[in-house]
Amino acid sequence: MDSPVTLIALLYGPDKPGLVARVAGWIFERGGNILHADQHRDMEAGVFFQRVEWVPFFAEAMADKPSGAPDKMAQAAEEFCAFATTLGMQARVASSVHRPRVAIFVSRADHCFHDLVLRGKAGEFNGEFALVISNHDDLAGIARGYDLPFHHIPVAAKAKAAAEASQLELLKKHDIELVILARYMQVLSGEFLDGFARPVINIHHSFLPAFAGGRPYHQAHERGVKIIGATAHYATSDLDDGPIIQQDVAAVTHRHNVDDLVRKGRDLEKRVLAQAVRWHLDNRVLAYGRKTVVFD
Amino acid sequence: MDSPVTLIALLYGPDKPGLVARVAGWIFERGGNILHADQHRDMEAGVFFQRVEWVPFFAEAMADKPSGAPDKMAQAAEEFCAFATTLGMQARVASSVHRPRVAIFVSRADHCFHDLVLRGKAGEFNGEFALVISNHDDLAGIARGYDLPFHHIPVAAKAKAAAEASQLELLKKHDIELVILARYMQVLSGEFLDGFARPVINIHHSFLPAFAGGRPYHQAHERGVKIIGATAHYATSDLDDGPIIQQDVAAVTHRHNVDDLVRKGRDLEKRVLAQAVRWHLDNRVLAYGRKTVVFD
Amino acid sequence: MDSPVTLIALLYGPDKPGLVARVAGWIFERGGNILHADQHRDMEAGVFFQRVEWVPFFAEAMADKPSGAPDKMAQAAEEFCAFATTLGMQARVASSVHRPRVAIFVSRADHCFHDLVLRGKAGEFNGEFALVISNHDDLAGIARGYDLPFHHIPVAAKAKAAAEASQLELLKKHDIELVILARYMQVLSGEFLDGFARPVINIHHSFLPAFAGGRPYHQAHERGVKIIGATAHYATSDLDDGPIIQQDVAAVTHRHNVDDLVRKGRDLEKRVLAQAVRWHLDNRVLAYGRKTVVFD
Amino acid sequence: MDSPVTLIALLYGPDKPGLVARVAGWIFERGGNILHADQHRDMEAGVFFQRVEWVPFFAEAMADKPSGAPDKMAQAAEEFCAFATTLGMQARVASSVHRPRVAIFVSRADHCFHDLVLRGKAGEFNGEFALVISNHDDLAGIARGYDLPFHHIPVAAKAKAAAEASQLELLKKHDIELVILARYMQVLSGEFLDGFARPVINIHHSFLPAFAGGRPYHQAHERGVKIIGATAHYATSDLDDGPIIQQDVAAVTHRHNVDDLVRKGRDLEKRVLAQAVRWHLDNRVLAYGRKTVVFD
Repeated sequence: MDSPVTLIALLYGPDKPGLVARVAGWIFERGGNILHADQHRDMEAGVFFQRVEWVPFFAEAMADKPSGAPDKMAQAAEEFCAFATTLGMQARVASSVHRPRVAIFVSRADHCFHDLVLRGKAGEFNGEFALVISNHDDLAGIARGYDLPFHHIPVAAKAKAAAEASQLELLKKHDIELVILARYMQVLSGEFLDGFARPVINIHHSFLPAFAGGRPYHQAHERGVKIIGATAHYATSDLDDGPIIQQDVAAVTHRHNVDDLVRKGRDLEKRVLAQAVRWHLDNRVLAYGRKTVVFD
Repeated sequence: MDSPVTLIALLYGPDKPGLVARVAGWIFERGGNILHADQHRDMEAGVFFQRVEWVPFFAEAMADKPSGAPDKMAQAAEEFCAFATTLGMQARVASSVHRPRVAIFVSRADHCFHDLVLRGKAGEFNGEFALVISNHDDLAGIARGYDLPFHHIPVAAKAKAAAEASQLELLKKHDIELVILARYMQVLSGEFLDGFARPVINIHHSFLPAFAGGRPYHQAHERGVKIIGATAHYATSDLDDGPIIQQDVAAVTHRHNVDDLVRKGRDLEKRVLAQAVRWHLDNRVLAYGRKTVVFD
Repeated sequence: MDSPVTLIALLYGPDKPGLVARVAGWIFERGGNILHADQHRDMEAGVFFQRVEWVPFFAEAMADKPSGAPDKMAQAAEEFCAFATTLGMQARVASSVHRPRVAIFVSRADHCFHDLVLRGKAGEFNGEFALVISNHDDLAGIARGYDLPFHHIPVAAKAKAAAEASQLELLKKHDIELVILARYMQVLSGEFLDGFARPVINIHHSFLPAFAGGRPYHQAHERGVKIIGATAHYATSDLDDGPIIQQDVAAVTHRHNVDDLVRKGRDLEKRVLAQAVRWHLDNRVLAYGRKTVVFD
Repeated sequence: MDSPVTLIALLYGPDKPGLVARVAGWIFERGGNILHADQHRDMEAGVFFQRVEWVPFFAEAMADKPSGAPDKMAQAAEEFCAFATTLGMQARVASSVHRPRVAIFVSRADHCFHDLVLRGKAGEFNGEFALVISNHDDLAGIARGYDLPFHHIPVAAKAKAAAEASQLELLKKHDIELVILARYMQVLSGEFLDGFARPVINIHHSFLPAFAGGRPYHQAHERGVKIIGATAHYATSDLDDGPIIQQDVAAVTHRHNVDDLVRKGRDLEKRVLAQAVRWHLDNRVLAYGRKTVVFD
């Protein structure tokens, strides 16, 4: 078997002595073998973070009888979370045999959409694109070409709540665990985010906190900066203020007009969003407060 | 002779047909040979910018009688400026035999100071460091080690005007043509900038416009960004808002605490400031409005 | 009119005084207006290079009667080339109303192919993809999805000459002016390159000259380098040795296995190849000897 | 106490289940608290690597009676190494209260030398520069300015063995634990490296394996590459072939002549060498075969 079946835990809580040893010991005593363990201490905040990935003892047995795997994995995950609670930690455990279902929200720009889907086909993501939702129907044909269900839900200024209710219904019906805003040009309300209660990743076309808000490439050109950037972050009800997952930049000069910035920016947006999505789906990202810990 | 004696003109003004040809023709008719000519059009603003560098006809003759060079160069520069006026352009002409005298303003941090002086000794700048001015005396010994005159001018909260008057007097007395704020931790007043009436280059330790103001590395750490940066810009009376000459960034992760950001930032600050100073002294930078054109 | 009709000349030859002025003067005397002029001197080799773009006097008139444009442009181009000859220079003149037809050669990898076609649809290239040629039929469906004619020409070890003859016939029949090797895994013979006699751009998946030859990501992993790269170059009969147009790199660590390098490399290959193709189609690249001058 | 007293172990050996738990358990049972633990598996080679840093139980007690610290640390280190042997692992343990003595070898170029010493003064390195050795006396004055003992040991073509013997004697006498070749332009013999038997870090001014050997900037200019680089590696008797610790690159264009490459390269060399030295002195680098694992 190329990649063994593993469990991946992300945990965090108040720092105290012995955490690394106790987590490793718990896994070892149950016959598990740790493949990767990475941790971080926020010294100022006194918080301990860990990502640990291990092969549980029953993984080999599962090769013969894979049908029982999800149950066993779910049980092991539950036991680990209970153990983490005894350490005063919050934990989230994912299984490598589970591929989350993902929805992509788009508007009219198609570059991030193409990029995500093609990377998905190339096997870059541990998840399945299950659904496309858009406030416009421009990309319906492209989605069809990729065999992806496309839902056109217009968002009228006065009927945003109704539109968001339809979106939420779709997400629940399809058991979506992650929403990607791939240049979706609508702000999601706090009600939507609370209602979904799962992660939403957005791509902002500037190196936040610079040029928050609309038309960042116009702002950048106006200000005469020598770099432009893109920022992937978890969406929160504070616009452009959620925990940053990844950022990257490119050099520009006076020779670049706004159209050039837009073109160069498309490359940044694709790369930065894809990297953030990959890390998230590999269970490498822990958000806390306004920040993230990325175990890359 | 390795590098020939040249004149370098920076000019800009309303765009109109034929400017490139007329400038090239003017130089050619006077026996000059253009080595480099670079131009830029700001299509939106309708402004034409040009940097042109040429060997004047008398350059070879000067090899025999170099004493007359400055006069001839000055006369040619004056004639070119007059010609530019007839095109409706503003021009500034520098001669490659003239090395501007430069003052460095410092406070307590020494990294940019060491870096600038050592690069100067390595021949990276077309100018001479003539003077160091500081509101503290911490770096007096280092300046002495480099044989650079050091002037300690404390800036008391209530006596800023007096301190700036002393600074201006020194700059005039030593015929300083460029001031570099090498992590000088005082804001220069509009009166000082008007009084000096020559360029002042500052290094700001963030990728402006993000984290303007004080303690940018603390702000960056607090916000959880994944990149930090530095910005070299011409100082104006609007703090952190002058035309940007150069910016660069470095990746950071959750593992970096504020001290790490400061350490990584020192490298950025050195590199970005040195690059801006080199371009300025090579007469490659044209500031207009809040922007720069850098003919690199 | 957003973008005016222009002529773009790329010229080079032995350096001598007055070239910039004479080229600018020639254009000016014929009523042309220079939009951009960039030049370079290779001091060691004594060679002068220039890219000059201008609006010819008849451009406005053409707005009314566009049918006559190609003829006038062709005539102006011819006249300029003749003029360049009198300066001892070689010149190539392109018209902004002409969009070259481009063929893409692929094998099994599809990332550069998707990337080029999608960028083409987004308007990033001054050319038309007219033809896809492959030694495998894996990408036939994708090409069809993009409405691009796909030709499967297998290259048997002993029948390479025949395969190349078929390829050449297609290229001539479709009047192809540029071939892009988008991870085409066959070496083109000197006979093919001579027969085509037009530019061929290849993407090599390493930062040449490191890891020339096959399986560069395996070589890089074996050597333990901390950066990987990609190189776009004009193909010559010396494998991996043609003039380099563009290179870029990405950092890697011991954590990346060969598959990770391949994945990260795909992003580099897409970006580097697309940039080289864009520059080439914008008439910004002059190859001479083993090098290129890129007027970006 | 800002930074607690810690022990840092670097270990590697054949991979097997339970290693993470057993190492963590051993430390925990002895009252130690793990601050950082990072590991890596080379899946292809079946090798396990770990860096683990912990506060030993006696660290607090040491605050009162620091004189006994080195003994206790040495004993704990010895015990850990014995334990690692029982796991089939090789281990090296360093104590955070020990600052290794470092020798810098230079020739005539001074940029890396200045850079290292100034970074040392700024507190960037966990070590002490104790000695400068050079085959020329050009930098004697600079070393004196920094209060560093300077030894001029000329290396005549026929008397290399004698020169190296003198160097080795100095290194032993001063208990040097790391040698940095800061643009030292002599090749060290296998005999010297065996005789020293401790790490030697070299900076090569190209992105190895490209342009190995002499005059890499000339080679790069000749080849027309669009990036230049620098490589810090452990010196081995195979010239330019030792395990790579760090590499970085910078973009160049046709406008840059060899002198420009040299100037831009100096910045790369300084940065890359300093980063490699910092990582090494922080006990973050494990060399094995031709590669390194860098726990950054």
